[in-house]
Amino acid sequence: MATKKILLTEDEMPRQWYNILADIKMNPPLGPDGKPVTPDALAPVFPMNLIEQEVSSDQWIDIPEKVLSIYRQWRPSPLIRAEALEKALDTPARIYFKNEGVSPPGSHKPNTAVPQAYYNKEFGIERITTETGAGQWGSALSYACSQFGLECKVFMVRVSFDQKPYRKTMMATWGGKCIPSPSMETNAGRSVLEQTPDSPGSLAIAISEAVEAAVSDKTGKTRYSLGSVLNHVMLHQTIIGLEAKKQLAKVNEYPDIIIGCAGGGSNFAGLTFPFVLDKLAGKEITIYPVEPAACPTLTRAPFVYDHGDNSGYTPLLPMHSLGHNFVPAPIHAGGLRYHGMAPTVSQLAAEGLIIPQSVTQLDALAAGILFARTEGHIPAPETNHAIAQVIIEAKKAKEEGKEKVILFNWSGHGLLDLGSYEKYLAGGLTNFELSDAELEKARAIFANYPKPQIIKSR
Amino acid sequence: MATKKILLTEDEMPRQWYNILADIKMNPPLGPDGKPVTPDALAPVFPMNLIEQEVSSDQWIDIPEKVLSIYRQWRPSPLIRAEALEKALDTPARIYFKNEGVSPPGSHKPNTAVPQAYYNKEFGIERITTETGAGQWGSALSYACSQFGLECKVFMVRVSFDQKPYRKTMMATWGGKCIPSPSMETNAGRSVLEQTPDSPGSLAIAISEAVEAAVSDKTGKTRYSLGSVLNHVMLHQTIIGLEAKKQLAKVNEYPDIIIGCAGGGSNFAGLTFPFVLDKLAGKEITIYPVEPAACPTLTRAPFVYDHGDNSGYTPLLPMHSLGHNFVPAPIHAGGLRYHGMAPTVSQLAAEGLIIPQSVTQLDALAAGILFARTEGHIPAPETNHAIAQVIIEAKKAKEEGKEKVILFNWSGHGLLDLGSYEKYLAGGLTNFELSDAELEKARAIFANYPKPQIIKSR
Repeated sequence: MATKKILLTEDEMPRQWYNILADIKMNPPLGPDGKPVTPDALAPVFPMNLIEQEVSSDQWIDIPEKVLSIYRQWRPSPLIRAEALEKALDTPARIYFKNEGVSPPGSHKPNTAVPQAYYNKEFGIERITTETGAGQWGSALSYACSQFGLECKVFMVRVSFDQKPYRKTMMATWGGKCIPSPSMETNAGRSVLEQTPDSPGSLAIAISEAVEAAVSDKTGKTRYSLGSVLNHVMLHQTIIGLEAKKQLAKVNEYPDIIIGCAGGGSNFAGLTFPFVLDKLAGKEITIYPVEPAACPTLTRAPFVYDHGDNSGYTPLLPMHSLGHNFVPAPIHAGGLRYHGMAPTVSQLAAEGLIIPQSVTQLDALAAGILFARTEGHIPAPETNHAIAQVIIEAKKAKEEGKEKVILFNWSGHGLLDLGSYEKYLAGGLTNFELSDAELEKARAIFANYPKPQIIKSR
Repeated sequence: MATKKILLTEDEMPRQWYNILADIKMNPPLGPDGKPVTPDALAPVFPMNLIEQEVSSDQWIDIPEKVLSIYRQWRPSPLIRAEALEKALDTPARIYFKNEGVSPPGSHKPNTAVPQAYYNKEFGIERITTETGAGQWGSALSYACSQFGLECKVFMVRVSFDQKPYRKTMMATWGGKCIPSPSMETNAGRSVLEQTPDSPGSLAIAISEAVEAAVSDKTGKTRYSLGSVLNHVMLHQTIIGLEAKKQLAKVNEYPDIIIGCAGGGSNFAGLTFPFVLDKLAGKEITIYPVEPAACPTLTRAPFVYDHGDNSGYTPLLPMHSLGHNFVPAPIHAGGLRYHGMAPTVSQLAAEGLIIPQSVTQLDALAAGILFARTEGHIPAPETNHAIAQVIIEAKKAKEEGKEKVILFNWSGHGLLDLGSYEKYLAGGLTNFELSDAELEKARAIFANYPKPQIIKSR
C-alpha cells in the first residue's frame, strides 16, 4: 500500500519563514501625501517588531522558539495523496493536498495569528483588535491570543455574524469578544449606520472599525492585526509550502501544477511562494490562484493603488482591486469576499509568474461534495474553489495522457460552514458573476489615484 | 523541545484488532425464550460475517486491507502530550491524549463504521439503517457508506435533529439520509407518536425504528448497524489503544491511569481494552470510565439483563442499565445519554477491573473550556467528561507529589456542538442528577427479568 499521508516529525518542521520580498521588486505603499509610508507612520497600528518584518528584505527569517512550540499543537500538517479522488476522476495525475484543516480553528489562519500574537506580546501589547468575514480569521486570532494571555476583540461582518452564530461562540470559548460590524463603538461604524441603519457590513468596513478601535485606545496597549494581504502575513504562511516541499521530496515528487484559492491571498501565498523561489531560478511550474467569479480581483480588476479598508485609514497599497467601496455578492465563501488582493500576489500576477483563474460558486460546491465523498474530509467553501481547479487540471491530464503532479492547499474544513452545503444540496444556491458594467463602475474610483508600475523581478 | 505529538507511520499502524472476549468470561445474550441467542437468530439484523465477529473468541482478528486503506485517511491518530494543560494545573503528572477528533466526521466512531460498512458490502448488502443521538454515529456511518457506495438511512432522535440541523447536512454531504425519530416510517415510531405526538424521541426508540426498517425490507439487501454496545464494535475500536501503546513505548512511557468517557462504552473500550489485557497479566493500572451524573449506568444502575432498544426487538444483554424505557435528562453530551452500557464494559466493572466515575455537566464544560484555552483544540461535550476526571487526577498527583502518567481518549471535537459552549458561557446550563426515587423507578422494570451472574475472569 502506498503511503497516503506524508508526515514530518516536529524536528523536521522548518525553523525559518521564506520572505519573497528578497526576490521580487515591489511598488511601495503610499501615505496620504502620495509618498512612500515610513515605518513610524504605522506605529500606532502595529507593534514595531511586526512593522520591521513587514518591510524586511531578508530572504529567511527565524521562527521564534515560542511560536514553534505552539505550532506543534497541529504542525507539521499532513500532506495527503488524494488517491480516492484520482480514482474517481480516472486521471493519470497524482494529486497531493496539504491539510491545513487540522489546526484548532480549522484553517491555515493560525500560522500567522500565533506569531502576530507573539510579537504583540513581546512588544508589551495587551489587547488586539481585528475584523473577520466568514469567521476563520477571528477564530484563529482568538485562539492565538488565548495562548499568550492577550485580550482579543473581533469586528465581524454583520451578515456573517447573524448567519453563523457558532463562530462567535468559538471565539468566546477561547476568550475572544466578537461584535457585529458596523457597530456603534467607532466613528467608522456609526457613520455607516447613520446612512444605512440596516447595513449588512463588509470586510472593508470592519477593517476600518478594528483599526480605529486600536489607534484610539489612549493607553497605547492596543494594536490592530490583519489576517491577510500584508507582507508579514504572507511570510508567516510560507511554512505551509516549506513543509510541503520537504514532504514531496520524501516521496521523490515535485509539483508540475500548484493551486490555492485566493481571497486576500494568504493561503495561496503560503503554499506557493517557496515554489515561486524555484520558478524564479528556472523551474517549470504552473501556479494558479483561484478566486470566485463573483469577486474577480486578479482575473478582471485592474492593478492599482487602493486602500485596504472602506474608510481609507490604511495606506494605499499596490494591488489588484475592485475598489475599497466594492460590496461583493453574497457568496458562501466569505473568506474570498475581499475587494483587493495581497500586493505580493498582485505583483506576481502582474509579472505573469502566476496565472489567475476563477470558478463559480456552484462548480466550487460540486467539487467539495465530490471531495467529501472520496477523500472523506469536508472542505471549506473557500477551499472548494481550489478543488474545482484541481478537477479541471486532473481531467486535462487525462485528456493529454500525462502523469502530472498536482499540489493544492486544503486551506480549511467546512464543519462550521455546513449551511452552504445545505443550501447547495437543496438546490437553493445560484451563481453570481460580476457584470462588465459593475466592473466599470468599480474601476471609476481609481481615476485620480496614483498608478503602480509593472516591474519585472527577473 | 520535547516532542508534543507522538506519531506512528502508516506502516506502524496495527494490523489486528484485540478481542477481549478471549480473556474474560461473559454472560450470553438471551433470546425471547430466555435461552442464549444463536447466530442464526441475528441473521435478519446483521450480516453473518459481523455476527461471527460478535461471537468470536479469537484473541486477535485481522483488519482487512481495504479497511486499513480507508483508516489511513486519518489514522494512525496522533498521541499528544498536554503540556500546556499540565502547566495550567501545575501538576507533576504527565498527561497524554489520543486525538480521535482528526477523522473526517470528527470522532472515534468511523473506527467501527468503516469495517461495518466493509463487512456489509462484502456480504452483498446494499443499504444500512442506523440510529443516532447527538449525530456523531450517523455522520460516521454516512461517511463510511460513501466509501463503499452503500445507501445509509439514519433515524436521529428528534430533539437533537431539531437542535442540530448541521448534523443532517453533514450526513447528506456524504450521501446519507437522516430523518427525525420517532417517524411514521415504522410501527415502532408510529406507536410512539400515537401515544405521544410531540415525543422528543430517545436513542432506544430510534434503535427500534432502525432495526425494524432493516428487518422489514423484503429484498434482504438491508441490514442494521449499531455504533456502540456490541462486542464487534468494541473490537474495532481497540485500534485506538493498540496505537496508543506503541506511541507511549516510543517515549518510554506506560500509563498509571487511563480515562475515557462512557456512554455506550465504545471509545472507552477502544482505548482501554488493550491495557486491560496487561492488567489481567498483572500490570498495575487504574482505569476510569467516566459517565454523566445525569445518566449513571455504571456508577449507580444495577447489572441486569435488559434490551438495547425501547421496543424489545434486541436480545437481552447482560449490562448495567437504567432500563430500556429510561429517558435521560437533556444534557448536552448526547452521546452519553444511553440507558445501558456495553456488556464487556459492564462485565469489567462488575469484576472491579475498572472503576466507574461520574461528573456533572457544568464540571465537564468547565474542563472543556480550560482544555481549549490551553491545548487549543475544542473538545466534544462527551470528551469533556473524560477531561474533568483527568483534571481531578492531575490535581491529586500534585497533592501526592507523584509523577503519574495519565492517558485519556480525546474522543472527538466539539465544532458541531458549540451550542452547548454557548449556553454554558451565557450561564444558561444547569446540572442534572438522577434522584434515588428515579433510580428505584428505573430498577423496578427488572423484577421479572433473568439475572446475569458475576463471573470472575481471573
